[in-house]
Amino acid sequence: MSTRLIDCLAATKALSEIFSDRHILQTMLNFETALARAEAHVGVIPVAAASAIAQAAAAQDFDMDELVEASLRAGTPAIPTVQMLRAAVHIQNAEAASVVHWGATSQDIVDTVLIELLLECRQVLEKDHRRLALALERISEEHANTVMLGRTLLQPAQPITFGLKAAGWLAALRRGWTRVGSRFTESAYLQFGGASGTLAALGDRGIRVSEALAAELNLKCPDAPWHAHRDRLAALLAALSIYTGSLGKMALDIALLMQHEVGEAAEPGGNGRGGSSSMPHKRNPTACMLAIAAAKRAPGLLSNFLAGILQEHERGVGGWQSEWTTVQGIVQAAGVALESMLEVAEGLTVDAARMRSNFEATSQESPDFLGSAEIFRRRLLEKKD
Amino acid sequence: MSTRLIDCLAATKALSEIFSDRHILQTMLNFETALARAEAHVGVIPVAAASAIAQAAAAQDFDMDELVEASLRAGTPAIPTVQMLRAAVHIQNAEAASVVHWGATSQDIVDTVLIELLLECRQVLEKDHRRLALALERISEEHANTVMLGRTLLQPAQPITFGLKAAGWLAALRRGWTRVGSRFTESAYLQFGGASGTLAALGDRGIRVSEALAAELNLKCPDAPWHAHRDRLAALLAALSIYTGSLGKMALDIALLMQHEVGEAAEPGGNGRGGSSSMPHKRNPTACMLAIAAAKRAPGLLSNFLAGILQEHERGVGGWQSEWTTVQGIVQAAGVALESMLEVAEGLTVDAARMRSNFEATSQESPDFLGSAEIFRRRLLEKKD
Amino acid sequence: MSTRLIDCLAATKALSEIFSDRHILQTMLNFETALARAEAHVGVIPVAAASAIAQAAAAQDFDMDELVEASLRAGTPAIPTVQMLRAAVHIQNAEAASVVHWGATSQDIVDTVLIELLLECRQVLEKDHRRLALALERISEEHANTVMLGRTLLQPAQPITFGLKAAGWLAALRRGWTRVGSRFTESAYLQFGGASGTLAALGDRGIRVSEALAAELNLKCPDAPWHAHRDRLAALLAALSIYTGSLGKMALDIALLMQHEVGEAAEPGGNGRGGSSSMPHKRNPTACMLAIAAAKRAPGLLSNFLAGILQEHERGVGGWQSEWTTVQGIVQAAGVALESMLEVAEGLTVDAARMRSNFEATSQESPDFLGSAEIFRRRLLEKKD
Amino acid sequence: MSTRLIDCLAATKALSEIFSDRHILQTMLNFETALARAEAHVGVIPVAAASAIAQAAAAQDFDMDELVEASLRAGTPAIPTVQMLRAAVHIQNAEAASVVHWGATSQDIVDTVLIELLLECRQVLEKDHRRLALALERISEEHANTVMLGRTLLQPAQPITFGLKAAGWLAALRRGWTRVGSRFTESAYLQFGGASGTLAALGDRGIRVSEALAAELNLKCPDAPWHAHRDRLAALLAALSIYTGSLGKMALDIALLMQHEVGEAAEPGGNGRGGSSSMPHKRNPTACMLAIAAAKRAPGLLSNFLAGILQEHERGVGGWQSEWTTVQGIVQAAGVALESMLEVAEGLTVDAARMRSNFEATSQESPDFLGSAEIFRRRLLEKKD
Repeated sequence: MSTRLIDCLAATKALSEIFSDRHILQTMLNFETALARAEAHVGVIPVAAASAIAQAAAAQDFDMDELVEASLRAGTPAIPTVQMLRAAVHIQNAEAASVVHWGATSQDIVDTVLIELLLECRQVLEKDHRRLALALERISEEHANTVMLGRTLLQPAQPITFGLKAAGWLAALRRGWTRVGSRFTESAYLQFGGASGTLAALGDRGIRVSEALAAELNLKCPDAPWHAHRDRLAALLAALSIYTGSLGKMALDIALLMQHEVGEAAEPGGNGRGGSSSMPHKRNPTACMLAIAAAKRAPGLLSNFLAGILQEHERGVGGWQSEWTTVQGIVQAAGVALESMLEVAEGLTVDAARMRSNFEATSQESPDFLGSAEIFRRRLLEKKD
Repeated sequence: MSTRLIDCLAATKALSEIFSDRHILQTMLNFETALARAEAHVGVIPVAAASAIAQAAAAQDFDMDELVEASLRAGTPAIPTVQMLRAAVHIQNAEAASVVHWGATSQDIVDTVLIELLLECRQVLEKDHRRLALALERISEEHANTVMLGRTLLQPAQPITFGLKAAGWLAALRRGWTRVGSRFTESAYLQFGGASGTLAALGDRGIRVSEALAAELNLKCPDAPWHAHRDRLAALLAALSIYTGSLGKMALDIALLMQHEVGEAAEPGGNGRGGSSSMPHKRNPTACMLAIAAAKRAPGLLSNFLAGILQEHERGVGGWQSEWTTVQGIVQAAGVALESMLEVAEGLTVDAARMRSNFEATSQESPDFLGSAEIFRRRLLEKKD
Repeated sequence: MSTRLIDCLAATKALSEIFSDRHILQTMLNFETALARAEAHVGVIPVAAASAIAQAAAAQDFDMDELVEASLRAGTPAIPTVQMLRAAVHIQNAEAASVVHWGATSQDIVDTVLIELLLECRQVLEKDHRRLALALERISEEHANTVMLGRTLLQPAQPITFGLKAAGWLAALRRGWTRVGSRFTESAYLQFGGASGTLAALGDRGIRVSEALAAELNLKCPDAPWHAHRDRLAALLAALSIYTGSLGKMALDIALLMQHEVGEAAEPGGNGRGGSSSMPHKRNPTACMLAIAAAKRAPGLLSNFLAGILQEHERGVGGWQSEWTTVQGIVQAAGVALESMLEVAEGLTVDAARMRSNFEATSQESPDFLGSAEIFRRRLLEKKD
Repeated sequence: MSTRLIDCLAATKALSEIFSDRHILQTMLNFETALARAEAHVGVIPVAAASAIAQAAAAQDFDMDELVEASLRAGTPAIPTVQMLRAAVHIQNAEAASVVHWGATSQDIVDTVLIELLLECRQVLEKDHRRLALALERISEEHANTVMLGRTLLQPAQPITFGLKAAGWLAALRRGWTRVGSRFTESAYLQFGGASGTLAALGDRGIRVSEALAAELNLKCPDAPWHAHRDRLAALLAALSIYTGSLGKMALDIALLMQHEVGEAAEPGGNGRGGSSSMPHKRNPTACMLAIAAAKRAPGLLSNFLAGILQEHERGVGGWQSEWTTVQGIVQAAGVALESMLEVAEGLTVDAARMRSNFEATSQESPDFLGSAEIFRRRLLEKKD
């Protein structure tokens, strides 16, 4: 299992596999293979060297414990990965060994791999988002006429419909995902600049290698390396954090509706969910709780990332190297919140009678007093941005 | 002066005027006037009532101390503002007094006013951003061939040009401002929903009043009220925080270049800037320091905002009401950082000879060994997104 | 009024007076007076010069707008304050003017004044804390036998007593205040080091001046200046943030108990509190909301302060200068939360019958099934640390 | 290896072992064993049942993948751990299986285990702290007379000694560790309260079981369970974050001194440290960088923890469950920073001649102009708090 027990409430299985040791190492090795191929293509290194590198670049042959330990000493996983790959290549082809990682710097591989991992995460998240949007749309339509209390500052206000409430969640999540999506696209760049970001070691062939490498990895080739400019990544992480916040808002609403004294909705439970170790009869808002917890982790992680973007000169001393664990934490927060709320939305129980009776208990005006609720609901559903 | 002494390093004069007591109060009163006009236009209230309201809505007639104190008691500045306005209207026209704020809720005015203040701030920031971009473009062109050390982890790496370094700052700031601009546009919505966000008090005329009010205020009319969905605001504040971070990165680079032992660049100083109370001969990187300080404040403020977006039901109990001071802090951080770095960029002294000699002192390869530096520089300048 | 409208929900009147422009300026001027007296006492400057300085050091004679504006340019309020004071002294005594601020650096005055302001805040907070503790003790005793639902994950659990719940709040607040108090005491140090923190300008009389100055200001004299070591301040602000968090927890509990569907407790309201601009009959948990909002602001402010403690060499470039506004924000958060919850505790309405009926509605075991609740309650009350 | 590759720069080996899956699970199982023994001791369950539980409580027999997966579903690792333990016990003794976890709730085990893990971390950290303090004391004594530039805002100021600078680091770290130590002691409490924190299931024997359990686990027995009061933990984590910040300040100073243009000090390097994948000759401040990166992670993690302490009623819905991963991140940040700076301090190279020549290059006053530097240095060393 790629999730540690200490992180058991803070990671989904699907994302943990993307961030697993073997998968990250293989992605790093694939970068070196792609670099060698690109350089062979442009004529910087021999084609045979590229083949030898590709052949040796198999994660299962590497000693992971040694790699992790050496990474901390080196201050980057890139150095020991390259060293171990060189050693593996050397057995077959000494000349090829000497051109492993040619012209690249540690941050080239570390950043490019991070982008590739993030793009894999995008697939996982996007699939769940689409299902969640569908489920919320269905709920909203189904409860277009289900009258319930509006509640402000946790006090009864004028009536709304549950359909409007669900449409509000949906619209925020759609807007949120639109931002996330465009930030993923904005960030999908190769990192490749060499020691100082000038590709100096490649002379006048830097741009061509860069383009070939981007093509190999199916990434966009940036105007220039972006080692010390983390704004695109920051914007992506901010978008993910905000999206997670909108999931947390939906989760908090449902956890509040699930209160025994309110009893207007309930998450599905089942299959080990919702239980209590001391009171077996209890039905806890476990999935909502996981989403709330995730939404409480994202803000501080994002602030850590932002505090780190003041990076010194061409490569910072600390800000950059602090990123991997933080980025992973934010993506996992989004993942846990999303997976949890998808389950909630697809299995939500709504007690329309209780909604009505709670409303009536406040002795307010007529339940027909709904103003523009239905117009707002339909508008929110229609805009599928 | 609208800036308090305790905040003297954390606020610009121009933005402080936007956030000044009188200006905020007048903007609130203008909302009530616009609402009355919109409602008169649709026939909800008499035209004469709207005129009476408009006439009484003059900030200079209000007791500001009383308003501030009453706001804390009410938990919102809206309630005492409306009460004081009603009292003022009542003197002239008792019927008009009874329709002040008709159909609206506290958050309608508070949020709409916040959006309006933010859009005013946008003008101030945008003007400075454009000038800063021009200054950086000029610096980059002027120093296209100024060779200097690349520095990674604060250690000498291969050479770059100062033109490339400046182009890197510029490109990050342009990307940053593009995001800020689109988030301002995304956020430029009226808030108007009444007690529960359904405009119930306006019956079937809610949408028409809403549209008329948006037109009065020159804001977009949203699909639905967004009282408890703060994602658009969060995205704007995140964009501003990232932009501030990019300014902070530029400031940190320059402060490091200004070190006596490095001596490659210097901010302008003059007019009370750069001095020391104990060593009059000293030339401090004061403007850079202000920008760095601002960039260190934005992350935690943003995390506060994000932590607050988990808002309960139709109006949260704490998350929302915590926003004003936080939003203002983020905008001011951007403003101080921008104003400071504009001054730095427009008056920057560059010591190309020192750049050259610091490079040569590292006994590295030829200064012609610049790889694709110039290609990257030109590409970064060209993309004017 | 010292509180700005934009901060109206984020500041108490009592603390705003401490952080008011005039009061801060006078405290800065008092520092210069005390310094002059200490230096005269040790024989560094003439006694007449100290008298002239003391006479000119009157805040009401200073142009506050000019001071605030000049502070931003100088990057510190110390430089213009000293300049303006020198000018004022010069009119009477040119020689005295030349020894104003003798041997001191900007950070000496700025930090010492901050400590003095904080110690004034301590008095305000402490008085409220003591009253709050008394009120909670009374509530706990009164409701020692008031059975209510325990609630976990917002779901019904086994019964507790309201007395135990109140005792839990009280014990956390007492522990919290004990930490706050000891951190205030730990931080109550003079800052006095001159340009590099060696008191070089005072030759071999630095220590004696330092001790005389500390005595003048009624502060402890530290082992050494602490310009770049902010750990004591950080520890104080962390303690205040945690204390604010415990107030926020109490506020959230009560806001949840105030829900219409729960109805077990209510904050007092009255005098402009608890109202709604759209629904006059509504009784909002306004004071609890203010405390929750405050508790949501403290964490990010604290993280900003902590991110700033990585200060370069003998005086940082940004981290330090970012502090004033942040420190004030944290203290005000504590102040608003405390003042609000004091009002709540002193006027809390408890509906013991509703507590009982909500418990019974869950058809659980006997209300006598309270285990060690009363033992725990008594123990919590007894420990008055 | 217990550290994941994604976290390779953010975790030490020693602490990762404490937070490893097997070790955490065994600590959880030991809690259940200790609980059973305590309950057998008081006569709540048969002695034979306690023995059967103890026998089955072996982490190596548990399916870790299943446990992690089930924990996410249950929203806590406690429920599946107890279930799996029950199943294991049941094979030998069905009656014993039914009393596993008797009277306890999920949070009892999760919190107690967290405290136990933290106390193990304390040992690791304390050993390193003591060595670091010794190394800094030695450096300070050795360089009592090594004159160097004081630097403020990264500009040259009056001279100091390197001995004074090192004494400043040491004093901050000693104060920091004193706070950490007292917060560890303050937090070393058993958590044991059952479903609602009243130990209801144990009738009048709750206190006795509680005391026996605390004795079994060598923890203090609290006045009352503290499920929803996280202030003690928060205070510990704040102290650790501040201590990490002081390490980061030392690291930043040294990284700045290591700049090629400054060249006054250097961290040791060797054994894979300090290298570059693109420039083999380069000597990077790798250990300092790791410490700076760690100090940049702590603030946001702490703010997440603080934002989570507003916990609802007797057990929160999200705030609490978010803690494990956050707590671990803060402790690891402290651990990485400490281990790194210990290596730096024990192997630091100081170039006193360069310090002197950099000072002389500023053409300032005499290097004897050191004021009270040596007095301050000695005072800082003497106070061994």
